[in-house]
Amino acid sequence: MTHSAAPSLVAVDWGTSHLRVWLLDADGAVLAEHRSSEGMGATAREQFQSVLEAHLAALTVPADVPVVMCGMVGSRQGWAEARYLTVPVSLADVAAAAVRIPDVIRDIRIMPGLSKPDRQSPDVMRGEETQLLGLSRLAPSAGERFVCMPGTHSKWVRMRGDSVIDFVSFLTGDAFAALSHHSVLRHSLSGASVDPESAAFRDAVRASLETPADIFARVFSIRAAGLLQDLDPAAAAARLSGYLIGQEIAGAKARFTVPGHVDLIGDPRLGALYTEALVIAGMSCTLNDSDTAVIAGLAGALSAPPKTGTDG
Amino acid sequence: MTHSAAPSLVAVDWGTSHLRVWLLDADGAVLAEHRSSEGMGATAREQFQSVLEAHLAALTVPADVPVVMCGMVGSRQGWAEARYLTVPVSLADVAAAAVRIPDVIRDIRIMPGLSKPDRQSPDVMRGEETQLLGLSRLAPSAGERFVCMPGTHSKWVRMRGDSVIDFVSFLTGDAFAALSHHSVLRHSLSGASVDPESAAFRDAVRASLETPADIFARVFSIRAAGLLQDLDPAAAAARLSGYLIGQEIAGAKARFTVPGHVDLIGDPRLGALYTEALVIAGMSCTLNDSDTAVIAGLAGALSAPPKTGTDG
Repeated sequence: MTHSAAPSLVAVDWGTSHLRVWLLDADGAVLAEHRSSEGMGATAREQFQSVLEAHLAALTVPADVPVVMCGMVGSRQGWAEARYLTVPVSLADVAAAAVRIPDVIRDIRIMPGLSKPDRQSPDVMRGEETQLLGLSRLAPSAGERFVCMPGTHSKWVRMRGDSVIDFVSFLTGDAFAALSHHSVLRHSLSGASVDPESAAFRDAVRASLETPADIFARVFSIRAAGLLQDLDPAAAAARLSGYLIGQEIAGAKARFTVPGHVDLIGDPRLGALYTEALVIAGMSCTLNDSDTAVIAGLAGALSAPPKTGTDG
Repeated sequence: MTHSAAPSLVAVDWGTSHLRVWLLDADGAVLAEHRSSEGMGATAREQFQSVLEAHLAALTVPADVPVVMCGMVGSRQGWAEARYLTVPVSLADVAAAAVRIPDVIRDIRIMPGLSKPDRQSPDVMRGEETQLLGLSRLAPSAGERFVCMPGTHSKWVRMRGDSVIDFVSFLTGDAFAALSHHSVLRHSLSGASVDPESAAFRDAVRASLETPADIFARVFSIRAAGLLQDLDPAAAAARLSGYLIGQEIAGAKARFTVPGHVDLIGDPRLGALYTEALVIAGMSCTLNDSDTAVIAGLAGALSAPPKTGTDG
């Protein structure tokens, strides 16, 4: 296993609705990849090991190759609980707090999540801490930086060096799905992917930035525009997306003194929407691919000695 | 039919998910009432007449007693379309624009809805215009007044005398249901009715009034409080309700110069929550029962001559 094409590590991102497995060489290059819908939400506790081993067998991973995992697999309802570390915390300490699965021969570790036990604004993340570790390895920065991580529960993170100082989550993607499918808007929207260059998206971002208070009036107006103005269902979806992303940026600015430049970690689709929205908000950003970040984070976590047991 | 106990009118509120039928005497007093879940959403177009006639037969309503209806029954997908009138409009004109169902011997009319064909903020109401007509009969006011009508799609209405000048809808109740049942909050909330006197509700209203921009961070914090602070599911529901009602009041204030006093039209449950929230926002209100208002509006509409046909 000294030459670079030999498998050296298995990196696993195991969330509520997805499982992604990457086989990496000693340089962190991807040798093979598996994507599956066997998310933690569809997996009973006693099945985690067999599900993982099936993927490892299909990838012919030797028994001495370690596995590092992040995501909801480490929650209380997951395979083994990797308890939240509270912010502020250094990402080196986060990696060192990875929990080793007991009673298994292979070295399998789960990254802990982060929490903010604030009485008024408690917050949690699980999985994103590993992307932050990846970002700090791929694009190190000694000073203060802001990171925006769009998704079901988007995170805005204030970092200093390799430490996470503070963060806040927004229910943006979850709200988009719930309102699209389970409110009166279900009659008005199509499932078409949103065009970040469209006027519908851009105008909506701008409207939420300008008057964030009346977000639920704007959201209802999508339905009214369908009835009165024959609003196109694709434009309706773009409007809802723009309203919610604009609202998130307005909310982040209300919580933090956000600088003019942020690091964005996302997939290409959300990355394009947030890049456009941030520009409308007068900000610039560097887009970092979320898969690349999580792989680099999981590879970086291996160098830390693991804890044993589930009392992390 | 000259003495007051004789049936003089049938008042019908036929919404998406409910059907309510009141038999009234000449003074507008309720002689009998039927409530049913045969909402317009569950009724095919050719069934409307038979559903209504079954209720009229059960109430032994003579064939010469007229029926006045409001709600989604007058939408394009309803029994017969009673097209929106655009604001500003007087409620006398709204009543006069009620559409008579063609090819039916009995005098059956449907009230039109109201629309605001604004390019940026289009809006619609259907059913609430009849409650406004009722309010203007039960509690006339020559000057300007604001009316708040909480519900699935809450309305805030600016009136002058018996005219509707402007209005805005908020998706508050719809968002509460969608987020409660179809976001990550489904793990955190109970279906318990919200106590307007609880600290959870009151603090949440205050938080949304103070910083409306970050509403979706507050909503996510309910989940985090469940994980980190064992937040009680009833308190979680109270918090979500308070956040959304506070957001609505903040939104209404962003749209209009809302005076210190508003007329509230609602059922006792929502009426109590909104009364408390309005007080927290530094406002006072008079609570008007929504059933009483819609009955008075439907009775008042009878005095206007109906239009014929569905081209209203």
